[in-house]
Amino acid sequence: MTQLPKDAMDYRGRQRRVAQAIAARHLDALLLTHLPNVRYLCGFTGSAGVLVIAGGRSVFFTDGRYRQQAAAEVRGARVVVPRGPVLDAAARALAEWKVRRLGVESEYLTLEEESRLARVLSRKVRLRKTLNLVEEHRMIKEPSEIACVRAAALLGASLFDKMVAAIRPGVTEREVAAELEYAARKAGAEGMAFATIVAAGARSALPHGVASNQPIPRRGFVVLDFGVILAGYCSDMTRTVHVGKPDADSRRLYQAVRDAQQAAIDAVRLGRTVGEVDQAARSWLRRAGLARYFTHSTGHGVGLEIHEPPRIARAQKEVLRQGMVLTIEPGVYLPGCGGVRIEDMVVVAAGSCEVVTPTSKELLIV
Amino acid sequence: MTQLPKDAMDYRGRQRRVAQAIAARHLDALLLTHLPNVRYLCGFTGSAGVLVIAGGRSVFFTDGRYRQQAAAEVRGARVVVPRGPVLDAAARALAEWKVRRLGVESEYLTLEEESRLARVLSRKVRLRKTLNLVEEHRMIKEPSEIACVRAAALLGASLFDKMVAAIRPGVTEREVAAELEYAARKAGAEGMAFATIVAAGARSALPHGVASNQPIPRRGFVVLDFGVILAGYCSDMTRTVHVGKPDADSRRLYQAVRDAQQAAIDAVRLGRTVGEVDQAARSWLRRAGLARYFTHSTGHGVGLEIHEPPRIARAQKEVLRQGMVLTIEPGVYLPGCGGVRIEDMVVVAAGSCEVVTPTSKELLIV
Repeated sequence: MTQLPKDAMDYRGRQRRVAQAIAARHLDALLLTHLPNVRYLCGFTGSAGVLVIAGGRSVFFTDGRYRQQAAAEVRGARVVVPRGPVLDAAARALAEWKVRRLGVESEYLTLEEESRLARVLSRKVRLRKTLNLVEEHRMIKEPSEIACVRAAALLGASLFDKMVAAIRPGVTEREVAAELEYAARKAGAEGMAFATIVAAGARSALPHGVASNQPIPRRGFVVLDFGVILAGYCSDMTRTVHVGKPDADSRRLYQAVRDAQQAAIDAVRLGRTVGEVDQAARSWLRRAGLARYFTHSTGHGVGLEIHEPPRIARAQKEVLRQGMVLTIEPGVYLPGCGGVRIEDMVVVAAGSCEVVTPTSKELLIV
Repeated sequence: MTQLPKDAMDYRGRQRRVAQAIAARHLDALLLTHLPNVRYLCGFTGSAGVLVIAGGRSVFFTDGRYRQQAAAEVRGARVVVPRGPVLDAAARALAEWKVRRLGVESEYLTLEEESRLARVLSRKVRLRKTLNLVEEHRMIKEPSEIACVRAAALLGASLFDKMVAAIRPGVTEREVAAELEYAARKAGAEGMAFATIVAAGARSALPHGVASNQPIPRRGFVVLDFGVILAGYCSDMTRTVHVGKPDADSRRLYQAVRDAQQAAIDAVRLGRTVGEVDQAARSWLRRAGLARYFTHSTGHGVGLEIHEPPRIARAQKEVLRQGMVLTIEPGVYLPGCGGVRIEDMVVVAAGSCEVVTPTSKELLIV
């Protein structure tokens, strides 16, 4: 398994670009509390810490548990391990630097954290809500990030056969997930990107059917939706297999979803909007009379987080740009009956998009 | 593996008690966005939804993906699946009910969610921050919850031998985690309660050393900190084993942590404060000259979340009450050298506390 050297990531360049975005918004500083953004900007992979970027300086605050790890990981920022809560320490630093207009991540900062800040900061300081300020940059992956995503996608896909080999009537969904997750760990995955979905028989009609203690039935669809984390980056793929011989209706259902998914992939072109990609899948299913059973969006960005901007959903205006990494995953769910979802990861490139999930989409009968 | 019937949980009683707490704070309604609190109050186990409790009525809002699951799981609340965002729908309902004083969970509600609410609610509505309103109730576990926690703790502990059997010089930490997590899944765990910690050799000095690609060295401590989820409840335990023969210093270090952990367990008595429990571990380590290497708190509550109130830390005033479930986990970390942590789960009961982690704390040499 390839592992990219940490310094393949351009942390200083990212901080510089974010500093420009901060200045462009007439902010004196940005307080980052969302850990994937913190990781993106300075490389820290732990579970507690706050990054402040202000006028050419970056300071990362963490607690005593992470002293050594932060020293080893953090790039482009000074590391401070205060005695008390990290947020209070960050606020004290901001007060010292005479920051007046402080950007915060409004999608992540809680009311309680806001109160903590207010207790330390003077009344002259104005909190300014920012939305997706760092995520806007993360949405366009650097070549080294695309390499990570690709490696994660290939690792994930390499496990699919092992998962399928575990599917037999009577085996529980959780046992199938167990085989997958074991293989993932043995292959070097840092963990799973989300709770593995194994949804068999009538449960395949649950779009979010996390693996349960229910046994695989003798006949029916099994939706398998899973992802691994490798070097911090998530993979995400779904295949739907059929246990026993599918009847004609089931084959038609599968084919409709497969065609809708292909239509959405074909719609991924530089300059189009993500709403158009969503529409491509939805129109196809409408013609098949199945649109009302497609109850979620067509996909999402993926990277350091399993769900990142953009959201590929109805009427979304985000324009497709080179370096975006997206999932394309329409599904159809017939309540009480069964469902089908097919999902690939794609990289938006000049010309067309590249599907990085290598797994066949022929209906697999087990 | 025992699985408690869902209706063993007294959702209606919990909602009633929370409704009383809402009234006592002179609130018209409480908006719950923190999913473990939502689950505690109405049984929903999915990843998206909002619960509103207002004047004798409870309504749960979720999105289309969870329509079937919510219908099957939710108790004591009407389920609504709106067309648009669930928070907007909840706000519209609150506006319709003429709610004036609305309690929100300030530790979880984000500035962005607050803005969304403000867009729908009239200016007459006042948001009131609440802190740990539901967590105060969750802190005291019902007998059926203690049964769940106990089952999770026993399942977790039953896997320890399999994990130890995988420890050999040259095997990576991740491979050890793989064996544990595979065994957990096969035994029916819903998942792991947190990223498994396998920290070997010098890495054992990292209090939060998530399993890495580093191989187990020929000699040194290995900290193993892991938990499973069973019926929604988390287990949490740590043992530190030694690869190869430990020298006298390592034995002394281990014994000091073991004694400190026992001192803290002995301090768990009804009516004492959690600060006193922390102090018991810290005093012992101070006498051994190791207090400054004990860089985190002594433990935390555990239940539907891996970290819940109370925090067993310096000067914390929370009084120990019957039905609390706590971890007791002092550790000593010598940077660059190695570390030891020992952790049990305990249930606070009349008389004394009960240690529910059955695993031996003799120093295990592998």
